[in-house]
Amino acid sequence: MEEETMIRVVFLGTSGSVPTRERGLPSLYIEFRGNRLLFDCGEGTQRQMRIAGLPFMKIDKIFITHFHADHCLGLGGLIQTLDLFKRQKKLEIYGPQGTEEVIKKVITTGHFILEGFDLEINEIDTRGITQIVAERDYSVWAAPLNHSVPCLGYRFEERKRRKFLKKRALEFGVPEGPLFGRLQDEEDNKIGSKVIRADDVLGPPRAGRRVTYISDTRPCKRGVELASHSDVLIHEATLSEEERASAIQGKHSTAKEAATVAKKAGVKELYLTHISQRYDDTSELEREARRVFKRTKVAKDFDTIEL
Amino acid sequence: MEEETMIRVVFLGTSGSVPTRERGLPSLYIEFRGNRLLFDCGEGTQRQMRIAGLPFMKIDKIFITHFHADHCLGLGGLIQTLDLFKRQKKLEIYGPQGTEEVIKKVITTGHFILEGFDLEINEIDTRGITQIVAERDYSVWAAPLNHSVPCLGYRFEERKRRKFLKKRALEFGVPEGPLFGRLQDEEDNKIGSKVIRADDVLGPPRAGRRVTYISDTRPCKRGVELASHSDVLIHEATLSEEERASAIQGKHSTAKEAATVAKKAGVKELYLTHISQRYDDTSELEREARRVFKRTKVAKDFDTIEL
Repeated sequence: MEEETMIRVVFLGTSGSVPTRERGLPSLYIEFRGNRLLFDCGEGTQRQMRIAGLPFMKIDKIFITHFHADHCLGLGGLIQTLDLFKRQKKLEIYGPQGTEEVIKKVITTGHFILEGFDLEINEIDTRGITQIVAERDYSVWAAPLNHSVPCLGYRFEERKRRKFLKKRALEFGVPEGPLFGRLQDEEDNKIGSKVIRADDVLGPPRAGRRVTYISDTRPCKRGVELASHSDVLIHEATLSEEERASAIQGKHSTAKEAATVAKKAGVKELYLTHISQRYDDTSELEREARRVFKRTKVAKDFDTIEL
Repeated sequence: MEEETMIRVVFLGTSGSVPTRERGLPSLYIEFRGNRLLFDCGEGTQRQMRIAGLPFMKIDKIFITHFHADHCLGLGGLIQTLDLFKRQKKLEIYGPQGTEEVIKKVITTGHFILEGFDLEINEIDTRGITQIVAERDYSVWAAPLNHSVPCLGYRFEERKRRKFLKKRALEFGVPEGPLFGRLQDEEDNKIGSKVIRADDVLGPPRAGRRVTYISDTRPCKRGVELASHSDVLIHEATLSEEERASAIQGKHSTAKEAATVAKKAGVKELYLTHISQRYDDTSELEREARRVFKRTKVAKDFDTIEL
């Protein structure tokens, strides 16, 4: 049961601009109830997925924040590998203006003809916060950020669910297993001739959990709105406050600024990512952010959040 | 002195087609007397160079064997990083037919405009073995291989040199250091008012050392000719003899076939690379090759040869 409702987030690359010995280029994996999503796909992502032991063949959708090289140059390799390994299922790709052109280039670089599966390309043009994916178990929302090129933040959101009353279900004689999930999906069910009503084992509705990914951007109002009440906010923190002038110039955020977004948005936990290669030691970034928002961590490659 | 004339070869990626936990995609680094060359540039090469601590900013020339994704998709990231870090020096790129088109695509994917340095693109169209680079210290030769797409093998060759008689030089009062190199370059030199003639400290000419890189191909006559009398032959060995039918179909070589090329070419040492992801354990590939050519090793990522 816990496994079935777990949202698993894996950091596949936590560096910004260039990879380092310790950090790969941006990519974030979210798995929930058999749905597998990738956010950003920097060079090397397919290898990071293999190292992490993730089922890269089963990715359903890829969301690209923007088309700076560090966030998207792993797409070509990943798509070609999926085709080599005989993927047949459609792959959905979402991104800002320019998505179609980039995908067209990466799948025609060198001797390659995509044959085995379809790509569904969704170019998102939005000024506000928009729901761009609505699935049975979750939705994804996008909002424009404030970077030097068109850039989107994304929020993964669990479908609003009623609390499952496990003790009550066991009292009704429901065995642990798939039936739990079906009841939680508000389906009535039978055990033998006995009808088990979802209403009898479900409590009041509760908000779906939220994981928000914001990279790259200056801190901005849209980012705060998108992240509102997230269980986890993953925010870029390329530089420290000391380098704020550079952050402004490159349209990035400092650790302190990311923490301010987390605080304003009322999130539960903040993870900093997209760390500049200049920081071998990230403890100062973490300290700086924690002075504003205590529940902050600097993410490392392969860190996993389970919620 | 030893350092100055050392040819250093570093394996940056030894997998074929797809990266694995242990092996990155094809790339090979050769450094000799301050010249730094890259052969192939699979996805992730820039990171592998950083992990190996190699000076990727100082690469002079890149040679691509062919334009299957695994051999070239690291070019975009590497070039963009060089530009980000303010490279100014021209970068030379060599490859078979199609090089220009691929490079044009990889440097225009996403929001990127190459501003800081020039690319010199050399498309090699050859039916035989051709010298494509002639520098003061070395030359590079190319030959067409037998793969499913246009593909070149490359031979790095030290300029033919006279043996340096170190003991004799010391007797003449030449101090160890840069003067050794200048004398070896057949320049006469002065220490104070004393003229040291190169002829006095140099022995008879000896053949330049050779390092040959052959990937991807069926075993072929041109490969044997290119590799002739190499000190080191690096040859693809995607599969074992057991999978020979697949090797033929994909236009690859088995370990045994690579060993046969090494034997026919009379090389000193053979390193197998471009290993299929199916081999967690490569000892059988090594054994298979050694039955034909004893001085064989299966290369691992970051293995370094110094000769």
